[in-house]
Formats: sequence, C-alpha cells, structure tokens
Amino acid sequence: MTGLDDLPLRDDLRGRSPYGAPQLDVPVRLNTNENSYPVPESVVAAIAKAVGAELRDLNRYPDRDALALRADLAEYLGHELTTAHVWAANGSNEVQQQLLQAFGGPGRTALGFTPAYSMHPLLALGTGTGWVPATRGADFGLTAADAVAQVREHRPDVVFLCSPNNPTGTALDPDVVAAVLAAAPGMVVVDEAYAEFARPGTASALTLLPRHPRLVVTRTMSKAFGFAGGRLGYLAADPAVVDAVQLVRLPYHLSSLTQAAARAALAHRDALLGTVEAIKEQRDRIVRELRRSGRRVADSDANFVLFEVAGDQQATWRTLLERGVLVRDVGLPGWLRVTAGTAAETDAFLAAMESM
Amino acid sequence: MTGLDDLPLRDDLRGRSPYGAPQLDVPVRLNTNENSYPVPESVVAAIAKAVGAELRDLNRYPDRDALALRADLAEYLGHELTTAHVWAANGSNEVQQQLLQAFGGPGRTALGFTPAYSMHPLLALGTGTGWVPATRGADFGLTAADAVAQVREHRPDVVFLCSPNNPTGTALDPDVVAAVLAAAPGMVVVDEAYAEFARPGTASALTLLPRHPRLVVTRTMSKAFGFAGGRLGYLAADPAVVDAVQLVRLPYHLSSLTQAAARAALAHRDALLGTVEAIKEQRDRIVRELRRSGRRVADSDANFVLFEVAGDQQATWRTLLERGVLVRDVGLPGWLRVTAGTAAETDAFLAAMESM
Repeated sequence: MTGLDDLPLRDDLRGRSPYGAPQLDVPVRLNTNENSYPVPESVVAAIAKAVGAELRDLNRYPDRDALALRADLAEYLGHELTTAHVWAANGSNEVQQQLLQAFGGPGRTALGFTPAYSMHPLLALGTGTGWVPATRGADFGLTAADAVAQVREHRPDVVFLCSPNNPTGTALDPDVVAAVLAAAPGMVVVDEAYAEFARPGTASALTLLPRHPRLVVTRTMSKAFGFAGGRLGYLAADPAVVDAVQLVRLPYHLSSLTQAAARAALAHRDALLGTVEAIKEQRDRIVRELRRSGRRVADSDANFVLFEVAGDQQATWRTLLERGVLVRDVGLPGWLRVTAGTAAETDAFLAAMESM
Repeated sequence: MTGLDDLPLRDDLRGRSPYGAPQLDVPVRLNTNENSYPVPESVVAAIAKAVGAELRDLNRYPDRDALALRADLAEYLGHELTTAHVWAANGSNEVQQQLLQAFGGPGRTALGFTPAYSMHPLLALGTGTGWVPATRGADFGLTAADAVAQVREHRPDVVFLCSPNNPTGTALDPDVVAAVLAAAPGMVVVDEAYAEFARPGTASALTLLPRHPRLVVTRTMSKAFGFAGGRLGYLAADPAVVDAVQLVRLPYHLSSLTQAAARAALAHRDALLGTVEAIKEQRDRIVRELRRSGRRVADSDANFVLFEVAGDQQATWRTLLERGVLVRDVGLPGWLRVTAGTAAETDAFLAAMESM
C-alpha cells in the first residue's frame, strides 16, 4: 500500500496531521464555538425559498463577484461601508488564505500573537508564507507597547490580530490595533470572528478603516448568525484590498446556493442574532461560576470561555468527555476552552466540572 | 484614493487582472462551456428537499470530510473506487489548488502543455509554484514522445494534462498519460472536466489509477451535470493522495448545502446527464458545418469546439457579439472557442458565422 511517505509531498508538510477538532457524537458539544441554537423555522423557510429560486439555473455559473451579497454584508456592517469595501468567501479561512496569497506567500512572513486562532499559522504554511510566532503577556493580554516592539523586531508582511481573541476570548482595544498599524510595514488583519458577542463598550476595528488602507477586518457568519454549515466569511477593507484579493481568488468560488442562503440569513438577522444575548448570559455565567470555584478564567467577549484546570488539561478533557461534555483542548498546558451555548448545556458543563 | 500600487501586494501579482470571461447579458451565451439546459423540474424538487433538510442545523459545521458525498462520487465513477480514493472541493479549481499546495509550492514547479486550461498557470502563481509552459504540436496534438521529452527536460514536480483538452477539445490517449507517468518525477494531474462528452472509445485516465499512485484524475459537476452554480469538483487518486490534500484543505471547506445539493444531483444523474447526447450532437454538427465551410476545426471530445477564423480573432469575436452570440477568445491568434448548447443556439451561432 502506498503511504504519504511514498509520495513527493512537500517537506514542510511531512509528519503533520489535518487540522480539526474531533467530531464526536456526544450529548453536549461545546468544542467548536458553534451557535447552539438551531435556525428558527421562519428563517429556515426564507432560506429554503431563496435557495429554491436558484436551483433551476444551477447549470449557469454564479455571479463571480457576488455583488448583491457583498452589498448586503456592507449594509449589515454599517460604518458607511459599500460593496467595494467588502469581499466574501467560503468561510473566513478562505478570506484569510486569499489575503496571504496576495500579501504574503514565498519570501514573505506573517506574524501572530500566540495563543491565537490556530489556523493562522496553518494558512501561512499552506501559502508558503513564513510564520513568526510572537507572544502575549502572562495573562494572555496584549499591550500596544508589547505588540509594537515585536512587530518592529520582525517586520512581518502580514500581522494577524484577533479581537475577541481565540482561544482566550478577550477583545483588543482599537488603540492597540492603531499602534500596530503605525509600526507594521505591511498589512494588518484583525480577525473579528466573534465580534457580535463583545461586551458593551468594545469598539470594532471597523472604526479605524477610513484612515487605514493597510487594515483588513475579517468576519464570519458561522458564530453569531448560527450559519456555520453555510460557510460564509467576509472582510471589510479599503477597495484596493478587495481588488488585490480578486487577483488570487478562484473564479466562481462562491456557489449560487451559498450566495442566496447567506443573503436570506442576512435579511433575517434580527431572528438569527436574537440568540446572541442569551449566549452572552451563559458566557458570563460560566465565567462567574468558574471564578467562584476559585479558577483563573480569561475575560471573554466571545461565545466561549478559557479556564484553568488543576494539573494536566488532557486528563480533565477526558473526564468531561466521559461525563458527556465535549470541550476543546487548544494545546495550552493547564487550560481548556468551553463554548457558551444554551442554559441546559451550561448546566451540564458546570455539573460535569464539579468535584474537579 | 488608495490604488493597488499603494498596497504591499506581491510583486508577481502587480499589473495583473482577475481571471474570468466577461459576464455579458447576451441572448446566446456560448463562452464558458456551461450546460445550456436548465435543471429539470424533478431534479429541482429533489435538490430543494435535500437542501431543505439541512437548513435547521446550519448552526452546526458541515461534515469536514464529506464522507457521504465522496462515497456517492466514488460510486458514480466506478472503476472499483471507494470513498478513500475520492476528494471533493468547491470546483475542480480548488481541488487543483490543494494539489499544488501539497505537491507544488515554493521552490517547486508545475508544467502544462499550452494551449490548455488557462487556470493552471494562475493556480501555480497563487500557490507560489513555478510554472513551465510546455508546448503542443502544430495541430494542438500531444504525442507521448513529445510530452516525455519536455517532462524529462524540465523535471517538474507536478504535470498537468487535460483530457479532453481545453480549449482545443481533443481527448488524450491513456498511453500518453502512462508515458508521462513513467517519465515524470512527481505528480501527474489529468484534468477530465469534460470527460462525459468524449466520443465513443475514448478511455479515461481512471483506468490507469490502480497501478499509479502519483496519478490524480480531476473532474467537475459543472459541465455534463449542469451543476456549475453548485460548485463541485472532485478528484480520484490513491488514498495517500487524499491524505495529502487533507493536510492543506481548509477545515469545513464544503458547506452542508453544497454536500446535500451535490448528493441529490448525483442521485438523479440519469435525468441530468440526459442532456449529454443532445449536446454531443450539436458539438458534432458545429464541427461538421464549420469544416464544410472550409475552416480548420480541432477534433472535439468536449462540449465546445475550437475553430479557425479568417484574420484577427478579436474582430470576429466582436462581430459575433454584435450578432447576439458570445463566444470565447482564449487568446489564441486566429482561433475562437464556442460552446455546444441547444440546437437553437447552434442555429444562431452558425447563422452569425455566415458571411464571415
């Protein structure tokens, strides 16, 4: 039998495993920061109608530029953004891959402040971009001075910031983003996948866009919109950035079904985003209860919570799984990440955490 | 205003334009090799039902490995292929991009025999893979001896072959593929996007798979299946190749909607592929009529025809457009490509070609 080692695989891929959390069939799945609430019936009907209208013409290629969807996304974001400021793809992973293809790639580097979203270094690997793992403070925080010093030292072509950060959950002050923009020689990508869950008073990096053509803010419909299965990520940036990613995007990358379904979801955003407040309540409850039991817990502006466990986090992960609760081991010694879902899921998680 | 030149774009992308044929609103569109027949009502209903069943759970990520879809694709291909031999993505462009990420990339090269599918060099560019433009014979043919000599000279890490070739339309004898496999040090990708339209007796490179772990055959549902708007490309290869692309694929790259719609289309393939014979008749009619008028025309195993025009092909392209018929200028001096669609479309095209 032929194995991977028998193929002329790239050397930098040898010995690696595919990215991804285990997809296990467990009663309480709190490991991938999905939205625990199913799509409401009224929105199901609207998406079905929108998708149904596309089916007869599936023999034709989709709108290559996804103009109507991008207009809807711009309108949702506000901040005086237009179609020309927005680009969409199959998940924010694809958006970020396109950004690295345009602004990173062979002979260039990207920098991220770890622990952060673990796909960023993998996207760098997949696009031949060198990866610089910069660091965060002991409390997982990131100050402007610390970020600027590391950017000045490495002079990366692309800087990734996460706000709220994954897996720690804490949002970044736009002042830090502005300081990094001033220090960075290249592009600065702020991954705001969880922006809709931020605590009151937390500003988005979208506020910085008008003065910063090297700034890109990426978003997703996977989390707050509960649209993970629909795969729709997007970015907002100067129109020149949108022109740049169009040089590397695959033609017709977004199917007619994706474009129609995402537009219907956006049109019913009040119903879909209606779950956000309930999720934030559970998030705050998890933080409060875990702290009450004496644990260290990171401040969270997201739909998940990073918390400290006693001893080996792999052992706690396994014990929780035995108790029917799947959380995420993000590879951070002594810490685990749990998604905030329904009240019943929080009950199950907190009960499973007792006596640990 | 910020322009592309003001951004830290990669140097090798500067001055380029996004790939893509003009999407013009013209009565007779024969420029992108779409299937001219809309999806039949019975299949529309089946896809609507399959997609509808996914909508409530869109809050959950899709099956990352698309196992059910891959099983269906393997069953469709036959040749004793299984789920482990098949991989799928958003169009065969994404499949081929993943292959270059795994087996090409920085410091490596890919080779194609031009004129061939014009996305291949662009996929190389986007993945940092060096591109070697090898040549075809004067009649656009490719002999085993010619192909082997060029592969031996350049020793590329990835060879692209197209069968039927785009834009010329002619299929490749599997003996040529086998000879290239014997000479090539790396992977050999046979792009069979148009395989279902081949003339009787034309063998697929799938027949070579059992003995060739470095062979990859890519396919698409965009053409014969009339599923261009659904975006589904796939590959068949040794299971180790499927393991390799999983190291570079974006997690959850295929939406729940895409997986469900493609499965429903495959389940109704008799209805969808029912258009293939009618399209082949029009293809053969176009070849016959253009030859009768004294033109050189390439043999076609696809749903399009490459034909010679008098003088500048851009002038003929414009004249045809003025007469309501959009064909493709593939940048080959003196030649144009026309898609075979319905009988009425052929009528319109042939009428527009008269007196030219």
